[in-house]
Amino acid sequence: MKKIAVLGTGSVGRTLASKFNSLGYQVMIGTRNVSDKLANKEKDSYGNPPFNEWCELNENIKLGTFAETASFGEIIVNATNGGNSINALELADKKNLSGKIIIDVANPLDFSKGIPPCLIPELSNTNSLGEEIQKKFPESKVVKTLNTMWCGLMVNPSMIAGGDHTVFIGGNDNEAKKQVTKLLISFGWLENNILDLGDISTARGTESVLPIWLRIWGAKQNGAFNMKIVS
Amino acid sequence: MKKIAVLGTGSVGRTLASKFNSLGYQVMIGTRNVSDKLANKEKDSYGNPPFNEWCELNENIKLGTFAETASFGEIIVNATNGGNSINALELADKKNLSGKIIIDVANPLDFSKGIPPCLIPELSNTNSLGEEIQKKFPESKVVKTLNTMWCGLMVNPSMIAGGDHTVFIGGNDNEAKKQVTKLLISFGWLENNILDLGDISTARGTESVLPIWLRIWGAKQNGAFNMKIVS
Repeated sequence: MKKIAVLGTGSVGRTLASKFNSLGYQVMIGTRNVSDKLANKEKDSYGNPPFNEWCELNENIKLGTFAETASFGEIIVNATNGGNSINALELADKKNLSGKIIIDVANPLDFSKGIPPCLIPELSNTNSLGEEIQKKFPESKVVKTLNTMWCGLMVNPSMIAGGDHTVFIGGNDNEAKKQVTKLLISFGWLENNILDLGDISTARGTESVLPIWLRIWGAKQNGAFNMKIVS
Repeated sequence: MKKIAVLGTGSVGRTLASKFNSLGYQVMIGTRNVSDKLANKEKDSYGNPPFNEWCELNENIKLGTFAETASFGEIIVNATNGGNSINALELADKKNLSGKIIIDVANPLDFSKGIPPCLIPELSNTNSLGEEIQKKFPESKVVKTLNTMWCGLMVNPSMIAGGDHTVFIGGNDNEAKKQVTKLLISFGWLENNILDLGDISTARGTESVLPIWLRIWGAKQNGAFNMKIVS
C-alpha cells in the first residue's frame, strides 16, 4: 500500500490522516513548524482539541515538516488552509512532489471580509486553487475532490442518506483520477456517485460550491449534509 | 389570482410565462423593444425558435415593453439575462416595481471570457445580482429562487427523480417568501424540498451554483438534473 502524506493539521487533515491510517496505510501528517504545533496547547478556532492530544491518540501516524512529509509520501493530500496552500506546497518542495498525485481537498476561502467567508478573488471565478497548484507544480498530478463537504462525510459517506450522495472529481491525468477513485471507494463512496467533471479547470466549479455550502450550513446549523445530483 | 409580469423572452422567460398561463394566471411578457423582437425571425443563440412563433402558440399571454409589463404585473419575474437585469429593471421603472415582489431567477453570467461562462465580478463573491436588485429597488421585495437549475425543471420538477430534489429560496421579506413558496408548490415543488436559506445575501450562494452546474452539464451533456440536499 502506498505511503500517504497529509499536509495540514486542521480537522480536515486530521480526519483524512486517521482514515488512511485505519485503512492500513502508512501515514505522515505535515505541518509548518512541528515544535510550535506540538507546543500549542490551545483549541483551534474551530474548537478542535490541541494537536498534541490528537497525536497521542494517533501514535501510528508520523509527524513531520511539510517537506519531510511530502518526501515520505507516495501520494500527497493537500488539506492545508486554501489561502496558504501554495506556500505550504512550496515549503513541501517541488522535488518532493514531482511525479506524485496531489489530492487537493482545500478551498480558497477568504475570511478577511467576515463570516461567511468569500472566495479569494485571484483563486476563483476565472481561476481556482486546484488549477493554480497544477500550474505551480506541473510535474505533479493534481486531483481535486472531496472539497464540497464537511470532512466527517469525506471519509464516512454512509453517515447520511445510506451513503447515496455525490462526490466530484477533476484533474488532467486520467490514471491519477482512477487511483483516487479507488481511494474514494475504499472510504465508502459508491462508484456511481463519483462524478468525474473533467480536467482540473473544473475545480472552478467544485470550489464554487463553498458559497452555497456555507449558506446551507447556515440554514441547517449542521455540517452533516451533502448534495446528491439527481437526473 | 394575481397578474404576473415576466421580464425577458429567452427560454427561461418563455417557460415561466407559459407555466403561469397554464395555471390560470393573467400573464404579460416584457421585452426591451416589442417590434424589434417580433421582427426577428432568427433562432436565438440557444436554438430557441423565433419569438413571434412562440407568441402565436401562446396567444393568451400579453406582450409589452418592460415598463408596460411591470405596470401590468402584481408579481414581477426577472428572467432577463443577468448581465442586463439591472438595466432591464430600470427600463421597467421603479414606480412600476414599488411594493411588488420581484422573483429573481437570473444569474450574473459573463460570457466575455469564453465558455463555460464565469460570473460577473462586480455581481459575485462579495455581492450578487439578487442583492444588487434589492439595493437598487429597495421598495420592491426581491425573492431569489429557481436560479440553480435548467428552466424545464423550474416549472416541472416531477420530470426527474419523482420531483424529490431541492430548490432554494432567499429574500429579506418573509411574507414575500411565503407567497413565492406557494407559487413553487403550485409548480409541483414539494414543500420539504424548498430550502429557505435566509436573507437576500444568500443569493451569493445560489448564484455560485452556476459554476458547478455548468461543469455537471458539461459532464452529462443534458440539463435535466438537479441537486438534492441530503442529510
